[in-house]
Amino acid sequence: MQVLVSILMGSDSDLTIMQETAKTLESFNIGYSIDVISAHRTPEIAAEFAANAHKKGVRVIIAAAGLAAHLAGAMAAHSPLPVIGVPIAGGTLGGLDAALSTMQMPPGVPVATVGINGAKNAALLAVQILATANDHLMQKYIDYKKSEGKKVVEKSKKLQELGYKGYLERK
Amino acid sequence: MQVLVSILMGSDSDLTIMQETAKTLESFNIGYSIDVISAHRTPEIAAEFAANAHKKGVRVIIAAAGLAAHLAGAMAAHSPLPVIGVPIAGGTLGGLDAALSTMQMPPGVPVATVGINGAKNAALLAVQILATANDHLMQKYIDYKKSEGKKVVEKSKKLQELGYKGYLERK
Amino acid sequence: MQVLVSILMGSDSDLTIMQETAKTLESFNIGYSIDVISAHRTPEIAAEFAANAHKKGVRVIIAAAGLAAHLAGAMAAHSPLPVIGVPIAGGTLGGLDAALSTMQMPPGVPVATVGINGAKNAALLAVQILATANDHLMQKYIDYKKSEGKKVVEKSKKLQELGYKGYLERK
Amino acid sequence: MQVLVSILMGSDSDLTIMQETAKTLESFNIGYSIDVISAHRTPEIAAEFAANAHKKGVRVIIAAAGLAAHLAGAMAAHSPLPVIGVPIAGGTLGGLDAALSTMQMPPGVPVATVGINGAKNAALLAVQILATANDHLMQKYIDYKKSEGKKVVEKSKKLQELGYKGYLERK
Amino acid sequence: MQVLVSILMGSDSDLTIMQETAKTLESFNIGYSIDVISAHRTPEIAAEFAANAHKKGVRVIIAAAGLAAHLAGAMAAHSPLPVIGVPIAGGTLGGLDAALSTMQMPPGVPVATVGINGAKNAALLAVQILATANDHLMQKYIDYKKSEGKKVVEKSKKLQELGYKGYLERK
Amino acid sequence: MQVLVSILMGSDSDLTIMQETAKTLESFNIGYSIDVISAHRTPEIAAEFAANAHKKGVRVIIAAAGLAAHLAGAMAAHSPLPVIGVPIAGGTLGGLDAALSTMQMPPGVPVATVGINGAKNAALLAVQILATANDHLMQKYIDYKKSEGKKVVEKSKKLQELGYKGYLERK
Amino acid sequence: MQVLVSILMGSDSDLTIMQETAKTLESFNIGYSIDVISAHRTPEIAAEFAANAHKKGVRVIIAAAGLAAHLAGAMAAHSPLPVIGVPIAGGTLGGLDAALSTMQMPPGVPVATVGINGAKNAALLAVQILATANDHLMQKYIDYKKSEGKKVVEKSKKLQELGYKGYLERK
Amino acid sequence: MQVLVSILMGSDSDLTIMQETAKTLESFNIGYSIDVISAHRTPEIAAEFAANAHKKGVRVIIAAAGLAAHLAGAMAAHSPLPVIGVPIAGGTLGGLDAALSTMQMPPGVPVATVGINGAKNAALLAVQILATANDHLMQKYIDYKKSEGKKVVEKSKKLQELGYKGYLERK
Repeated sequence: MQVLVSILMGSDSDLTIMQETAKTLESFNIGYSIDVISAHRTPEIAAEFAANAHKKGVRVIIAAAGLAAHLAGAMAAHSPLPVIGVPIAGGTLGGLDAALSTMQMPPGVPVATVGINGAKNAALLAVQILATANDHLMQKYIDYKKSEGKKVVEKSKKLQELGYKGYLERK
Repeated sequence: MQVLVSILMGSDSDLTIMQETAKTLESFNIGYSIDVISAHRTPEIAAEFAANAHKKGVRVIIAAAGLAAHLAGAMAAHSPLPVIGVPIAGGTLGGLDAALSTMQMPPGVPVATVGINGAKNAALLAVQILATANDHLMQKYIDYKKSEGKKVVEKSKKLQELGYKGYLERK
Repeated sequence: MQVLVSILMGSDSDLTIMQETAKTLESFNIGYSIDVISAHRTPEIAAEFAANAHKKGVRVIIAAAGLAAHLAGAMAAHSPLPVIGVPIAGGTLGGLDAALSTMQMPPGVPVATVGINGAKNAALLAVQILATANDHLMQKYIDYKKSEGKKVVEKSKKLQELGYKGYLERK
Repeated sequence: MQVLVSILMGSDSDLTIMQETAKTLESFNIGYSIDVISAHRTPEIAAEFAANAHKKGVRVIIAAAGLAAHLAGAMAAHSPLPVIGVPIAGGTLGGLDAALSTMQMPPGVPVATVGINGAKNAALLAVQILATANDHLMQKYIDYKKSEGKKVVEKSKKLQELGYKGYLERK
Repeated sequence: MQVLVSILMGSDSDLTIMQETAKTLESFNIGYSIDVISAHRTPEIAAEFAANAHKKGVRVIIAAAGLAAHLAGAMAAHSPLPVIGVPIAGGTLGGLDAALSTMQMPPGVPVATVGINGAKNAALLAVQILATANDHLMQKYIDYKKSEGKKVVEKSKKLQELGYKGYLERK
Repeated sequence: MQVLVSILMGSDSDLTIMQETAKTLESFNIGYSIDVISAHRTPEIAAEFAANAHKKGVRVIIAAAGLAAHLAGAMAAHSPLPVIGVPIAGGTLGGLDAALSTMQMPPGVPVATVGINGAKNAALLAVQILATANDHLMQKYIDYKKSEGKKVVEKSKKLQELGYKGYLERK
Repeated sequence: MQVLVSILMGSDSDLTIMQETAKTLESFNIGYSIDVISAHRTPEIAAEFAANAHKKGVRVIIAAAGLAAHLAGAMAAHSPLPVIGVPIAGGTLGGLDAALSTMQMPPGVPVATVGINGAKNAALLAVQILATANDHLMQKYIDYKKSEGKKVVEKSKKLQELGYKGYLERK
Repeated sequence: MQVLVSILMGSDSDLTIMQETAKTLESFNIGYSIDVISAHRTPEIAAEFAANAHKKGVRVIIAAAGLAAHLAGAMAAHSPLPVIGVPIAGGTLGGLDAALSTMQMPPGVPVATVGINGAKNAALLAVQILATANDHLMQKYIDYKKSEGKKVVEKSKKLQELGYKGYLERK
């Protein structure tokens, strides 16, 4: 399957969070690759990866990192592709450091930042981007949104039925 | 020209910042619309706009708001399109409130958040998204990146020539 | 019993916290409903709920959400009723994100924000609001306040009796 | 006119902000009083005021203060009435101190906190509270919301007409 | 023994932290009382306590509270005595709320704030204050400081002897 | 006049704020000294000053500093006297750095921290400390508190008379 | 072995973190000493240590502390050597207090601050500093960097081989 | 003169702050170069610069940047030299974003972070690093420290002479 989305992590410890990105892309049947690449420990590999991804057919890069999270920014520096940054809550500040390091990019080099530990949303945003040129995928995304809404409705119904005490005990 | 990008602002006071988004899209020759729509003061209009944008050929929504910035989230709730959120530094907290309100979206409803007051980067991210299915535009973006790099190089050269004192006086 | 207060949660995971709201309203014998409604995953339901609540006799809406907590704001956008927002500490930032997303509403659309995870205070505030037109309820609230004060006094007495070591061991 | 809303400020320097509360209540034709009362410098007066306000027919207390903003909490400690707290950005921290001091009330003593410097929203919330038992006032509030929405629509139209450059020059 | 220091807590849950204050005062042989008094739930008792403490021979008030920690400020409002505030890390923000609520007092009403959960330092500061008029107590405090320093020196020596591995294993 | 209070500043740029400390002590007729001493640039002088102050009759040290504000902590390290720390808002973080650097002292070495730029409160706290052993001074402080309360009452009366518009125009 | 690097900790509780500094220096075969010295509890020892370290051949001081972390600043005040500060996450604020207390030094007295709990990086920075005058050590550092990069590459390869599910199970 | 220190800025707008670095190095007669290099806009130049600096005799790199300040980290990724990071307060968050982005580096890649806008301290830290292998420079630095201390002493004397009123008027 053609790799359309590249998932990158600054450290393999981010995988616990980032597996959700892979799973979500799989559920939309989108080809992806997954690599550990560090902006700081393997900068040449990072640069080369970023400079060439679009030539290999990749359409979106997802980069996750914690602390002074530079990976997404490094990708954006070298690649013309849209880069989605996932700040990971990896230190003692709850990910505020990673969020600011990912989001506060200077004019000229955007990173599309999702929420802290937002692995699922990173995948969904990639789907949305790909869907801008793929009506079939957009319809799939619309269906996904509906089904997510239905889950909420069903939970609400169950809560009505059982009352809050029953609902909490059930869980 | 076909409108591919919708620029929305929660308040017309955001226009001073957001004009940069319009200018940048113009420089890439991309059709856009620009509206003042409030998630809180015109919620039905916001919902209707979001629900229909993709049917009219819009491909990306850019939503800017300050304080408890819900506009991008409201767009993402109703639209399958990628939504770029621009947190505006509109109150007394330097935009930290808007940044968190825009970025910290729950699983299932992503917003692509750029930096605080990141009007230019919002436009560039929209260009990158459109370019994922438009080789001509991607080349244009690659050229843009190169020219931005050149500007930095030229400034650096000028700084070498003039020395820091001369450079500061020149400005 | 007439439903006077609507309790809404953005996610059923908020119920562990929000059961306290229900319990407190029960202790004041006030009719309430409880629903899971998401500003982002079920926005149309949220809008319809908000637009119609006051027509059904609801007098106060309590909306709890975490992260980019938009639920209270979405209620306030569509409803003329007083909306009490409960920021939930749901992510990695201790609820600071939810607090700012709930509290920092733009002029024209207020949300009455209580403290982070302030489920009990949300109920009490609803009681106070209803009591502005119900002398019997106000007297009940006055009695409640007195009894809460007495509990503190009794704890203090017990602490005097036992000394701090005895008091800590007792617990 | 019967005083239904008491506006309190911890310092007369808050009046520049809080005049908006008075103006907004006037526009809804609601009787109000306005006082400078300090939780720290005139604590006995504050306590007495709070303890008696509901006996004089006051229905809502609005309390504005900056820094370690205790005024709203002090009102809530002594009064059974709903207390709306307005954190004022009075020091060097942009009002974050006042926001936390006002909002983070312990269980049992709620304060309805609006945004930092949220003088207008404090008045509107008071109107909403009074309107829970006053259909005429609720209709007035519904009309107000509509007219606020219309203003946004008109601004958006004007922006379409003039384009962003024309709109910015006009201002 | 004459009570020279009053230890107050907003909640008996603060006692786990605040027992250290009592223990430290005991080690200096200073008479103290310990009470649970809430600025919000027992405001009249708090006011009366504060207004009369100095008449009973109390010389320093130590007030500990979490969240929107008003207890120290309420004491300072009513009492001419020096009030030491101990911010308790009681909610989800690590005590930053309590620290700002305790420290950011307006001009005219000081609170001597120690660090978050700084129960021991509160006692030591009270000792220092009492020692300004008690040479014997000052000498005792000077001796205490020396002995604290010696403990550090001994730990350092032990670390030299054992090496860091040995030292860590020993613990 | 016997110097009872030492006012120290880390930099002469703090004097604009700290003159208020001197003025307030003068108004209570308390002898004070005022020096520029830097914990970082003149550490030996700081250490010597701290080690000897109590021998010269000084009873309270007030230390003001911005940024990584160590001056109060350095005083507390060397002196048995109560040390009042005044965090100065000197950099770009509104004094949050100085507040934490001053307040978060380790167990064993307290600093009595007042609010950011709290020069007046530092003086008043010193007065309160001295008054614990000086009934005349305590009475003076009680009178001061009353007169401060009266000023608030007078402002409130003036506001009633003039209305908020008149009051704002008057200023 | 000549001691080139002095590792200091404000408390022996920091050793769990700081053992990594020692281990890393050992791996580069660099002589070091390790002491518990408190800027607040043993200030004279700290001052003497700092004033003399360079005379004994020490070339870099590493100082770790939590809370109002003054140790690095105190070293920098007394010593001409480069001082590396390690903020320790020791309280309830995740080390933000220690980070600001260590980093925000006034002009004239630098501290080289590494990340919160950055014990390993402190050692590596010391190695880099020593390597500026030691080609052999610089080569060793270059080799270290390469080997660190290789570890990342190997993890990435393993992840490719096993897939994310296999990789997570393996751990 | 041999270039021993490379001063880099992410943007020429940082020069207003960073000229102080150049001036301070000049005062110590140390050869330096100064360039505008962006980690994001000229990443290849940045990488090449970093990879080769030590081969040209550079001994310390100083890198200043604002927002998601990656420049220092990018230098540290590619160079074995000690890298001093200067966070610039360039956006709306007072430089907190730049401070965290610069300081919170992952294990293996240290950056020596000085305070926000700490241009002077960056130069002094570079001097200290160079002085570890240059006794003459270390003596110069010791003299510098003494002279800085003397300036403080002189200011303090002047303050004694003139009194605080006279001192403030003089300025």
